[in-house]
Amino acid sequence: MLSFGRTLNVTRAAAADFSLRTRPTLTLCSDRRLLRISPRRKCSGKRYNVPPSAEFLARVSGIATMAKLPYQETADGLDAAFIGVPIDTGTSNRPGARFGPRQIRAESALLRSYNSGTRAAPYESLMVADIGDVNVNMYDLKDTCKRIRDAYRKVLATGCIPLTMGGDHTIAYPILQAVAEKHGPVGLVHVDAHADTSDVVLGEKIGHGTPFRRCVEEGLLDCRRVVQIGLRGSGYSADSYEWSRAQGFRVVQVEECWFKSLAPLMAEVRAQMGSGPVYLRRLQY
Amino acid sequence: MLSFGRTLNVTRAAAADFSLRTRPTLTLCSDRRLLRISPRRKCSGKRYNVPPSAEFLARVSGIATMAKLPYQETADGLDAAFIGVPIDTGTSNRPGARFGPRQIRAESALLRSYNSGTRAAPYESLMVADIGDVNVNMYDLKDTCKRIRDAYRKVLATGCIPLTMGGDHTIAYPILQAVAEKHGPVGLVHVDAHADTSDVVLGEKIGHGTPFRRCVEEGLLDCRRVVQIGLRGSGYSADSYEWSRAQGFRVVQVEECWFKSLAPLMAEVRAQMGSGPVYLRRLQY
Amino acid sequence: MLSFGRTLNVTRAAAADFSLRTRPTLTLCSDRRLLRISPRRKCSGKRYNVPPSAEFLARVSGIATMAKLPYQETADGLDAAFIGVPIDTGTSNRPGARFGPRQIRAESALLRSYNSGTRAAPYESLMVADIGDVNVNMYDLKDTCKRIRDAYRKVLATGCIPLTMGGDHTIAYPILQAVAEKHGPVGLVHVDAHADTSDVVLGEKIGHGTPFRRCVEEGLLDCRRVVQIGLRGSGYSADSYEWSRAQGFRVVQVEECWFKSLAPLMAEVRAQMGSGPVYLRRLQY
Amino acid sequence: MLSFGRTLNVTRAAAADFSLRTRPTLTLCSDRRLLRISPRRKCSGKRYNVPPSAEFLARVSGIATMAKLPYQETADGLDAAFIGVPIDTGTSNRPGARFGPRQIRAESALLRSYNSGTRAAPYESLMVADIGDVNVNMYDLKDTCKRIRDAYRKVLATGCIPLTMGGDHTIAYPILQAVAEKHGPVGLVHVDAHADTSDVVLGEKIGHGTPFRRCVEEGLLDCRRVVQIGLRGSGYSADSYEWSRAQGFRVVQVEECWFKSLAPLMAEVRAQMGSGPVYLRRLQY
Amino acid sequence: MLSFGRTLNVTRAAAADFSLRTRPTLTLCSDRRLLRISPRRKCSGKRYNVPPSAEFLARVSGIATMAKLPYQETADGLDAAFIGVPIDTGTSNRPGARFGPRQIRAESALLRSYNSGTRAAPYESLMVADIGDVNVNMYDLKDTCKRIRDAYRKVLATGCIPLTMGGDHTIAYPILQAVAEKHGPVGLVHVDAHADTSDVVLGEKIGHGTPFRRCVEEGLLDCRRVVQIGLRGSGYSADSYEWSRAQGFRVVQVEECWFKSLAPLMAEVRAQMGSGPVYLRRLQY
Amino acid sequence: MLSFGRTLNVTRAAAADFSLRTRPTLTLCSDRRLLRISPRRKCSGKRYNVPPSAEFLARVSGIATMAKLPYQETADGLDAAFIGVPIDTGTSNRPGARFGPRQIRAESALLRSYNSGTRAAPYESLMVADIGDVNVNMYDLKDTCKRIRDAYRKVLATGCIPLTMGGDHTIAYPILQAVAEKHGPVGLVHVDAHADTSDVVLGEKIGHGTPFRRCVEEGLLDCRRVVQIGLRGSGYSADSYEWSRAQGFRVVQVEECWFKSLAPLMAEVRAQMGSGPVYLRRLQY
Repeated sequence: MLSFGRTLNVTRAAAADFSLRTRPTLTLCSDRRLLRISPRRKCSGKRYNVPPSAEFLARVSGIATMAKLPYQETADGLDAAFIGVPIDTGTSNRPGARFGPRQIRAESALLRSYNSGTRAAPYESLMVADIGDVNVNMYDLKDTCKRIRDAYRKVLATGCIPLTMGGDHTIAYPILQAVAEKHGPVGLVHVDAHADTSDVVLGEKIGHGTPFRRCVEEGLLDCRRVVQIGLRGSGYSADSYEWSRAQGFRVVQVEECWFKSLAPLMAEVRAQMGSGPVYLRRLQY
Repeated sequence: MLSFGRTLNVTRAAAADFSLRTRPTLTLCSDRRLLRISPRRKCSGKRYNVPPSAEFLARVSGIATMAKLPYQETADGLDAAFIGVPIDTGTSNRPGARFGPRQIRAESALLRSYNSGTRAAPYESLMVADIGDVNVNMYDLKDTCKRIRDAYRKVLATGCIPLTMGGDHTIAYPILQAVAEKHGPVGLVHVDAHADTSDVVLGEKIGHGTPFRRCVEEGLLDCRRVVQIGLRGSGYSADSYEWSRAQGFRVVQVEECWFKSLAPLMAEVRAQMGSGPVYLRRLQY
Repeated sequence: MLSFGRTLNVTRAAAADFSLRTRPTLTLCSDRRLLRISPRRKCSGKRYNVPPSAEFLARVSGIATMAKLPYQETADGLDAAFIGVPIDTGTSNRPGARFGPRQIRAESALLRSYNSGTRAAPYESLMVADIGDVNVNMYDLKDTCKRIRDAYRKVLATGCIPLTMGGDHTIAYPILQAVAEKHGPVGLVHVDAHADTSDVVLGEKIGHGTPFRRCVEEGLLDCRRVVQIGLRGSGYSADSYEWSRAQGFRVVQVEECWFKSLAPLMAEVRAQMGSGPVYLRRLQY
Repeated sequence: MLSFGRTLNVTRAAAADFSLRTRPTLTLCSDRRLLRISPRRKCSGKRYNVPPSAEFLARVSGIATMAKLPYQETADGLDAAFIGVPIDTGTSNRPGARFGPRQIRAESALLRSYNSGTRAAPYESLMVADIGDVNVNMYDLKDTCKRIRDAYRKVLATGCIPLTMGGDHTIAYPILQAVAEKHGPVGLVHVDAHADTSDVVLGEKIGHGTPFRRCVEEGLLDCRRVVQIGLRGSGYSADSYEWSRAQGFRVVQVEECWFKSLAPLMAEVRAQMGSGPVYLRRLQY
Repeated sequence: MLSFGRTLNVTRAAAADFSLRTRPTLTLCSDRRLLRISPRRKCSGKRYNVPPSAEFLARVSGIATMAKLPYQETADGLDAAFIGVPIDTGTSNRPGARFGPRQIRAESALLRSYNSGTRAAPYESLMVADIGDVNVNMYDLKDTCKRIRDAYRKVLATGCIPLTMGGDHTIAYPILQAVAEKHGPVGLVHVDAHADTSDVVLGEKIGHGTPFRRCVEEGLLDCRRVVQIGLRGSGYSADSYEWSRAQGFRVVQVEECWFKSLAPLMAEVRAQMGSGPVYLRRLQY
Repeated sequence: MLSFGRTLNVTRAAAADFSLRTRPTLTLCSDRRLLRISPRRKCSGKRYNVPPSAEFLARVSGIATMAKLPYQETADGLDAAFIGVPIDTGTSNRPGARFGPRQIRAESALLRSYNSGTRAAPYESLMVADIGDVNVNMYDLKDTCKRIRDAYRKVLATGCIPLTMGGDHTIAYPILQAVAEKHGPVGLVHVDAHADTSDVVLGEKIGHGTPFRRCVEEGLLDCRRVVQIGLRGSGYSADSYEWSRAQGFRVVQVEECWFKSLAPLMAEVRAQMGSGPVYLRRLQY
């Protein structure tokens, strides 16, 4: 999960989120192929936060921050910040993702600072900390979205890249509002079973099935630099992904991902994203 | 749970709900002492719906309606109707009560038509059916409250007594709006760990901690005929129940319920309720 | 799971069941490759039942019928009918499949009417409903089998194709008795880890390990049109599948299914099945 | 659970079973008040089996026999024998009790040889071992009953007292057939929520709701020495326990057990049982 | 759980721990009767840490410290400090208590600052914070004990009262070593099912069954001021509690606690404890 | 899992273990490709133990030994012996593997004597039994290691091949001490996510992350005949497997195992192992 670290420089990535769908206990296995990219950023002599090694600190000891990184109240001085958005009130079926940030932090006690497969060493070149959670409004999803947008504005104002721990998929919308305010329309790498591009659900414009419709309407995405990977299952119309394709999104249905390495696809995704800012969204089952 | 059946005549009870807090699997054990009341209503020769006996229909067979009673779309012709309100978006901590009605129905396959302890035989004098769920708005709690109120107006208009399967505690507010429209201010028997009388939480007037504050503000309760039983635990002020008492509610903290029969208390509750309409609210752990 | 819809015309399919082994919570992911077949049946102007869209009806709302389709007491007027057979008394090890139909119905609230991968739209050309469960005898497996056979006779008499929700694997035997009465010996597509072709177990002829032995003995299967796919694991003899092959069954062990697309296999299966009636049996893990 | 040990002399107890209803994980807490009786039997110099002390053998080590007592194939030479009857095919609702004997054995690793509350020391005067399980027929409940009866005949023929680990409640019937063959009609101490005295269920005479009806019909019980304790909940008729009382059984509904010591009741039970042989049946939640 | 707050002044309490036995999910319900004592300590004008109100901060938001109190690295300036001791390597049967401190913190998001039953308001007169966990040695229990003792020495040196979140019962021994170094032999209020006074288990002097034997041997307890409450179950000798009583401990078996208020017992316990320092140990089921 | 049976002759295999990491419920699916080897050993006319067939003995019946094989106290007369090592006190994070042997035995009731895929029939040429568990010291990991080594010395002295059911990964070290005493340095086939070659963790030389470092230091492994397969995830240094490779181990990271048959790899492993004794270590997820 930390393997993308070295590549998160300011010109490249704008934000990333790790949304939960329904399973409160996560396995934080990252898809290394997606992110095996060579480092760009130089170390500048300053000392970085590093997850404490389980060789010296017992895994079960310590306050559960993300990867046991230091907690700090704001994003000041950080290259990247873990931030939790603990909501599930945008969910249509099974709730529980509100406990996602708390449980990701608990399980992150197992993370170590290097990745043997990708050889990524994010903590050698990036200053990272856990800055806690957005104070959401459990009783009003629209107000929660405002609170998320405002919180991300502050984080982004410091120049820091937010690494979001969700939370249901609704959160992509207010986060991208804040991101696009700073970076303009961004690219999107969206790994999920669902496109999340519905227009109105149960009479509502905001929910976990609609964020990317709202983002396109408000011009938050650079639609030629959007890819949705892994889409599958039943839908409301004969071509569920027609709208996505009509916006210029690339859609990669899950059948195209079976029985083969995803490395060629990832090379194409990198070419599609180019050098502009990108929002990464990964569904963790 | 069905033991109160015989006493639910029109002059006495206005509505009843069975709210869930956090545990999705219910044990439907009723507190018989609360409800052991003699029957009033005459049988009038018509045939009633009765839960099918497991002597003839296998417990595991059949569509999961409440107690395997017939499903009908409206409350027309019913004395009492089971109705689900599947929400948890008013919850401050653990969600899941949205699956309460579905799971209560699943477990209700164990219910039989008589109660050996209370000798209640509700299906001998009341026409009861399952009329399904309110179509809630998962994404907007305030709109959900409107939908609940409107649905209960229709049910109450038929003269039927609604037996609610929740759903988090927010639902008492819109249900009582509809009940008071028909019956005027009603008495309340409220069995719970919490008073649910907060004013504003996270900036919101509506949530699972505030329904009875709203009900008092809108004059939906006959405050001298309100009793809250079983209150306990930590609170926000030195006397968490000061406001309840100031309204004229009787508050029975849980310490008063330990190590003894609750029959004397129930006699007092019955005297307090008198002959006016009453809303029963039972928390199922 | 609904993707095979269009192909279930009268000349082709005779019945289908979805048996459970031991896991009460299902993931209803269908193997699309198996079933991607072009439609044959014409729409004839009549209106069909369609699972209500979660865009208008909250997923958590409503009585739990299969896919929230209407419930009707008989199969009259239906092209296909979901029917539950809630037994596990034929199981040798872990029980629980008796709750399979109830739980499949609960989880089916997530199903939508189209399948983006296969482009199947079953509800555009078939009248489908949920007709409830067979009233099984929990205490006598042999009598349960009679009850299943009788119930399926009635369903098949209407010309409807039954879509079975199991229930342990014993059920294939009485269902095929009813199917063969109407259609003569049928083909079989059997996806499972076990062949279920034992002769006698614990002194009994009927149980979840013996149904296809009984079917062959009674001439219910067209043995040249039988394929068993995915067989694996330990057995009672050096060649566990010898008997199957001796009957003319095609046996595809699970090793032949690893690391590759199953599309070529499915083409062969279709050729093997030809145009006669077929019984589909899918194990859901 | 072992606290009744000293009192299980040949003239007093005939058999005991510990039936499971639905929860596979047991807490083996005994109700000491029921069983605090002074010892009668003399030690005769021979050495007894004793559960190995966790002071010397790690709790997690060792084959899971009951209390880690030795396993032997027959009851020869034993005063009392633990025997499992792993069935749940007589259950009307939730199965799983077939794993009861296995799980009781697993959890029994926590048992120690003395009981501080009752001062019982069963292993100082009784030779006890685990003699395994009845080889039940998973596919035919009636044949299973025959197998149980036959197995108990053999155990009882040795003069040993069987201590049964169930298994659903059906088992009381075949066990009492074997017991009454040897001891004549016996007394019964039955602690349960249900009377298990139905006549016919789903057309069947044998199941977990009918054993004591069958026992009375066959004269296996000394009806004046039968007590049913803890009965509660809903039933099929206005007086669910009428039949029990008509046979001369004492019925103690659960309401009579609340908020007080059960010692006076147990004194009455002992007086009722007198000095004849008794079958103890305890439901473990 | 926080209800004892006001009484934790320096002359009265020396330490308190909340040990876990086997259940990782806690319900933090305190036994109010034990601790309803009037306040002694004056507020001195300084501002205290207070758990943030869920009226303003969403329960699901925020790093999981105990009661969301501030985390600080040392006990400097605190009246009382929550400290975790995350071990279970002293457990004889089911492990998991190593996750106790983490899970207590997670569930403590529900705690509020006042207790309606006891009227305790600990945060109005005590400066409390969470100081994290002892860095235990997962692989060597004896070294873990040294690490615990050393950590508590540092905490106690500041004058702060440690409020321990365990961890298995072994921890009482090294904590009391540190406590007695500072306060001399202390009183003990020990609420548990087991006396934890074994001498040697599996050849070892240190484990979760031996701490109070070690404490007595080293003179850490004022034995006339020791009470063990709730002892029950099976043991290794006819009188499991003989040794406890021989040391002068008061032993209150669980049978003495049934069916009645514990207030009279608690009055006696307070008289027994007098005015000297006391170690409270509470088992949470 | 039993498929390797025929190949376990004295000149080839020295020992095998099946270690558990964190999941108490096992699926005992073996990777057949690893072990499909032709038989070498002749049947010599003696009769072997065979797991009883579920055709004659109900799966739920019987004391839970491994595969319901006979239990015997020592390894005398056995070709191979199942032996449990129930520890988890060497675990850095989630414990529970101490219940591994007990749970493997419980689930092994499903095993049958032949494997249809590999055609292995181990019980036709090997005398196998369950010889119970090592009596571990729950409170001292170092003493536990001594106890394991001593127990394995006795088993190996009989000429029997131990088939270990773990238990955490620490156990490989003391087992290999005993194995190398008898067989000299052995080959190692190690299937795991982690290399378990750390030097010191939390100041300790012995724990579940260090066994193969210790083994190399003590010359227990023939390092050219060591292969570690499936290594993955985050580590403490840029090249987590540098040390392994420096010893001459072959390291096969998990990325090399994706999307393809492992048969070619297994052929290479067999060539690497040659004809000397080998220790197999398989992690079961």
